[in-house]
Amino acid sequence: MERQECSGSSSQGPPQGRSGTPPRGIKQLPRFDAGVMETYLDDMRDMKAKVYQMFREHPELLPNVEEGLSKEEHRELVRRSLKVILQNGYSPLDFLARDPRKYFYLGECLSMVDLSLMVKSGVQYSLWGGSVLNLGSEQHRRRYYDDIAQLRLPGCFAMTELKHGSNVAALQTEAVLDVLTDEWVVHTPDEGAIKWWIGNAAEDGRAATVFARLKVPDPNGGPKLVDHGVHAFVVPIRDANGSTLPGVEIRDCGYKVGLNGIDNGAIRFSHVRVPRTNLLDRFASVDKSGRYSSPLTSQARRFAATLGELTGGRVGLVAGSVGVLKGAITIAVRYACLRQQFGPPDCPEVAIIDYQSTQLRLMPILATAYGLHFARGLLTDKYVDMKRTREPRLVEEVHALSAGLKAYTTSYTQAALSTCREACGGHGYAAVNRLGALRSDHDIFQTFEGDNTVLLQQVSAMLLKEYRQQFSGAPLTATYHYLRAALLGALPNNPLVTHDTEPRHLRDPAFLAKALEYRTARMLFTLSLRLRKAGPRLGAFHAWNKCLEHVLDLANAYVESVVYKTFLRAVEGCVDPECRRALKAMSDLFALRLIEGDMMFR
Amino acid sequence: MERQECSGSSSQGPPQGRSGTPPRGIKQLPRFDAGVMETYLDDMRDMKAKVYQMFREHPELLPNVEEGLSKEEHRELVRRSLKVILQNGYSPLDFLARDPRKYFYLGECLSMVDLSLMVKSGVQYSLWGGSVLNLGSEQHRRRYYDDIAQLRLPGCFAMTELKHGSNVAALQTEAVLDVLTDEWVVHTPDEGAIKWWIGNAAEDGRAATVFARLKVPDPNGGPKLVDHGVHAFVVPIRDANGSTLPGVEIRDCGYKVGLNGIDNGAIRFSHVRVPRTNLLDRFASVDKSGRYSSPLTSQARRFAATLGELTGGRVGLVAGSVGVLKGAITIAVRYACLRQQFGPPDCPEVAIIDYQSTQLRLMPILATAYGLHFARGLLTDKYVDMKRTREPRLVEEVHALSAGLKAYTTSYTQAALSTCREACGGHGYAAVNRLGALRSDHDIFQTFEGDNTVLLQQVSAMLLKEYRQQFSGAPLTATYHYLRAALLGALPNNPLVTHDTEPRHLRDPAFLAKALEYRTARMLFTLSLRLRKAGPRLGAFHAWNKCLEHVLDLANAYVESVVYKTFLRAVEGCVDPECRRALKAMSDLFALRLIEGDMMFR
Ligand SMILES: Cc1cc2nc3c(=O)[nH]c(=O)nc-3n(C[C@H](O)[C@H](O)[C@H](O)COP(=O)(O)OP(=O)(O)OC[C@H]3O[C@@H](n4cnc5c(N)ncnc54)[C@H](O)[C@@H]3O)c2cc1C
Ligand SMILES: Cc1cc2nc3c(=O)[nH]c(=O)nc-3n(C[C@H](O)[C@H](O)[C@H](O)COP(=O)(O)OP(=O)(O)OC[C@H]3O[C@@H](n4cnc5c(N)ncnc54)[C@H](O)[C@@H]3O)c2cc1C
Repeated sequence: MERQECSGSSSQGPPQGRSGTPPRGIKQLPRFDAGVMETYLDDMRDMKAKVYQMFREHPELLPNVEEGLSKEEHRELVRRSLKVILQNGYSPLDFLARDPRKYFYLGECLSMVDLSLMVKSGVQYSLWGGSVLNLGSEQHRRRYYDDIAQLRLPGCFAMTELKHGSNVAALQTEAVLDVLTDEWVVHTPDEGAIKWWIGNAAEDGRAATVFARLKVPDPNGGPKLVDHGVHAFVVPIRDANGSTLPGVEIRDCGYKVGLNGIDNGAIRFSHVRVPRTNLLDRFASVDKSGRYSSPLTSQARRFAATLGELTGGRVGLVAGSVGVLKGAITIAVRYACLRQQFGPPDCPEVAIIDYQSTQLRLMPILATAYGLHFARGLLTDKYVDMKRTREPRLVEEVHALSAGLKAYTTSYTQAALSTCREACGGHGYAAVNRLGALRSDHDIFQTFEGDNTVLLQQVSAMLLKEYRQQFSGAPLTATYHYLRAALLGALPNNPLVTHDTEPRHLRDPAFLAKALEYRTARMLFTLSLRLRKAGPRLGAFHAWNKCLEHVLDLANAYVESVVYKTFLRAVEGCVDPECRRALKAMSDLFALRLIEGDMMFR
Repeated sequence: MERQECSGSSSQGPPQGRSGTPPRGIKQLPRFDAGVMETYLDDMRDMKAKVYQMFREHPELLPNVEEGLSKEEHRELVRRSLKVILQNGYSPLDFLARDPRKYFYLGECLSMVDLSLMVKSGVQYSLWGGSVLNLGSEQHRRRYYDDIAQLRLPGCFAMTELKHGSNVAALQTEAVLDVLTDEWVVHTPDEGAIKWWIGNAAEDGRAATVFARLKVPDPNGGPKLVDHGVHAFVVPIRDANGSTLPGVEIRDCGYKVGLNGIDNGAIRFSHVRVPRTNLLDRFASVDKSGRYSSPLTSQARRFAATLGELTGGRVGLVAGSVGVLKGAITIAVRYACLRQQFGPPDCPEVAIIDYQSTQLRLMPILATAYGLHFARGLLTDKYVDMKRTREPRLVEEVHALSAGLKAYTTSYTQAALSTCREACGGHGYAAVNRLGALRSDHDIFQTFEGDNTVLLQQVSAMLLKEYRQQFSGAPLTATYHYLRAALLGALPNNPLVTHDTEPRHLRDPAFLAKALEYRTARMLFTLSLRLRKAGPRLGAFHAWNKCLEHVLDLANAYVESVVYKTFLRAVEGCVDPECRRALKAMSDLFALRLIEGDMMFR
């Protein structure tokens, strides 16, 4: 927007002192009815209001930065908060089992209360509870459900080891069947196999879902044990008084960069015995005689099915991360509208939102927050459908979408938190304004439940698989010509080629959607060519590694294309014209910033 | 590098367990003698060894993350550390006054000990001490030097107010001369003018350099006071027992995102009286009768001279920030060489440094750390020269260079800290590994001593000024043609145009230096055109704002070009061939990543 020095309402008179003039930034934002917008965006907002009200009534539960909480004090707050949530009639495990949308929504609400609380709740209900529900059978459900739901049995999800985080297939903890006693002997063979970072372990956990290599005697009577790979077992770790059980050694992982309200611990097992029935046996079981059986034919498939059941955790992180993003950008935009600094000579100072640099910093984040809000809705809906129908195609899709969106959203939010702090200047550095704690707490969202760099590779692997299935059998040249045509056709009015930079064209959703699709298709196509070329010479692993940046870019491009399409549907679905106009502007900005930032479009 | 599955020394046999194999990453790094490199990089390393040794002997002074320090405890550590430094014969104020290279070097050493300590030392010696030395006259120096140097008089630099940080010219605190008593009456007129964020104020400060509007009676006898703008005054704030003096009200600014070892406070003055001689009068003085005089002709010039004397603080931040960058990238690269995760089927796992994505994350940071190390050397040397010669051209240059490098380095380091944490996965999130604390502490380096967004604008403004002086009088078209020719000539072999992408050409320093210069020149030229075009219609302020992103990009490009040229000189100056080869590789990477990331080159 162009204007003269001291333009706007304040131009009539001399400067009246910095506090008297209404901030210009606010006045120039597009107008819409916030209530109408909220209704459209959020059909569960009553719950949010209630949850916030609940904590308003318990201010003593909020981590008070002014007290410089120790980790023990923070953990105590979180423990009490979990109880208060239950006492107020919210049962996260019931939500998860019966109405996952509510579960994820509650998570988003808690993210702005205290991320430690949100994550600790996730550990108890989604990781510990979810692993029992999804990997176990009816007997496990019957036995544990109520105790987990009511917090009578706090538990852990003990997968990661000191030496293995991302590469879970290589975990070394072992569970060996003792046929004589009908028990598993759970054991940590060396220091590298100590379970590490396990949430709820250092203080509260009474039991854990332990991921360990299942080993049984050789059915052919050979002297060696047969290793069936990583499976999940329920292992009690503390008694009712909270003392560790024999053979279980637990250490506190100590202070972390953030999330210090969670008691992460390291666990070492020394020949700990649990009944044979403690194997969570949905995908594989072992009978009294030690015979192993599974409906799934290969170890890889069983492991994939096991990990596939854990997508819920990633959906939860997307919800939490989007919550944080909304909170952070709200803080920063509000402050930028109020804070005034510098101005034309002899004029009142301008609101910092009026600086082009502030707008370029904050507005794309705002736009992306909307986009990711809708994408998170899509993911939740698909997840619910998948849980209901168990349709294999949907299972694959939710896996890819949850991996991609988890990686994209958490990386985006993390960078945005820094930008928001910087945009708020010195006052953004006051602990009480929360941007620092949000950044420190949220940081690890990028790493746990699947490291982002690793998840993005899974997304691209799935895209490549689909792509190859589509063209399987076709000779390379045929595929090439087909795609070339398709790609060229896809972007007939590429403004970067036609130089048609009229706003009408640049803000045409059909064009923008095509552009983002085109980018994904082209990257997929070229990646596939590069892998084919390098594979024979280097072997699959090193060929993949040689293209790794390309692989990661493809996955991000794919996610961006999905987010934009979802955003567009949300714009179209909005009946209120003013809200729709505002949403449309945000979606334009979302797509145009991507195009501006990416040379692939040339 | 291309290789077959399981290549390298570990390919001869079957996998021997994850811990047995030497990490491949380390083996493939270019070889040079680390001692020779260190000698070349750092001619003061004895001091670093001694400083580190000093803290090794006082482990009780290091902030121990495992104790979850309160801000009070952390402040106490910092207080004691400052004394230990003095007791060991290091006098930072002496360094600053006599051998600033040592002062900045000590700051870099302290940055990896504890950033709170480094900054608190900076507040006492560079901000408080430096303002007295540089803005005062001989009498101030005599009166305060020893007490400041020996920590007998802890003090503050009280510039920022609640409502004004970047726009210091608009500060509202006032110092009114009372001619009858020959005193200044220092007063906070409203809440917005409360001094805010003042380091050393909440607990320790006994005195402060207070920036306030100097007001004297109208020499023509008029009823109104004459406001000469912002000047610096020494104001005692606490007595020898640490009690605040009458009329001085101080509050603790509370917990911050980081740097909690520093006692930032808010100060309100109510008609506090100090002798007339407490005006730091190097650039302006007031006599008994209230007559104001100055060797500098305008208020703007006096203010610029005042701020110009404070460049030392920025040089210090560059040194500290480069120290943090070196520390962080060392942590991340070391870990990446040791950590192994995944690998080709039936092979040992590979070191994560071997992943292309890890290399693309970390190696450019390593390269930039070298580049900024040399640039910081250049800045220090120029600063020393400037202090010695007081040559106006050098004053301007150091101002631009310190502003640009401060902004560039601190923004770069801040982003790098997040990247390093992410590259270390879960173990990067353990507080004990320091990346989190470094990020939280360092964050505000981007904001204090001049917000980066504001400093970059000053750099571009100076570039434009120089540019205009060069072409003053020339008609626009002449300038245009001249520059067009110069620009086109500057980049005869642009590989993005000639498609000459041979490594020999791409790694040719002459080409790379030209490319970076060309980018700066082009941006400067186009920015100047855009401002000329928009100025008449919008007025200078809004025209500038309309081009703000361009302005910031120009400043960054300029800094990058300077850093690269300095880097090249350092490569050329290295006589050891292996070290030179390694440095050359780093400098290539530094420049090529910039070119890859910037569409301006097309
Ligand atoms: C606060 C916290 C809470 C946690 N809670 C739990 C819990 O309750 N239960 C549990 O089981 N675990 C938990 N974890 C562990 C978490 O799941 C792991 O940290 C995560 O899976 C990553 O593994 P890692 O830390 O071993 O990193 P690594 O797998 O060692 O990765 C290190 C780095 O290498 C990179 N890298 C690895 N492989 C590749 C590749 N193939 N290509 C490219 N780059 C690669 C990664 O991107 C990363 O940057 C928690 C961790 C933390 C910090
Ligand atoms: C830990 C800490 C220690 C400090 N110590 C001291 C001290 O000892 N003494 C002291 O005097 N001060 C101190 N400060 C204050 C510090 O110098 C200020 O925070 C800094 O100068 C920035 O001012 P501000 O915070 O008011 O931000 P503002 O100036 O209000 O800026 C807010 C935002 O607006 C943007 N902005 C402002 N103007 C423009 C523009 N023209 N164009 C584009 N964007 C703009 C900025 O980039 C920033 O993002 C300290 C601050 C902190 C947090």
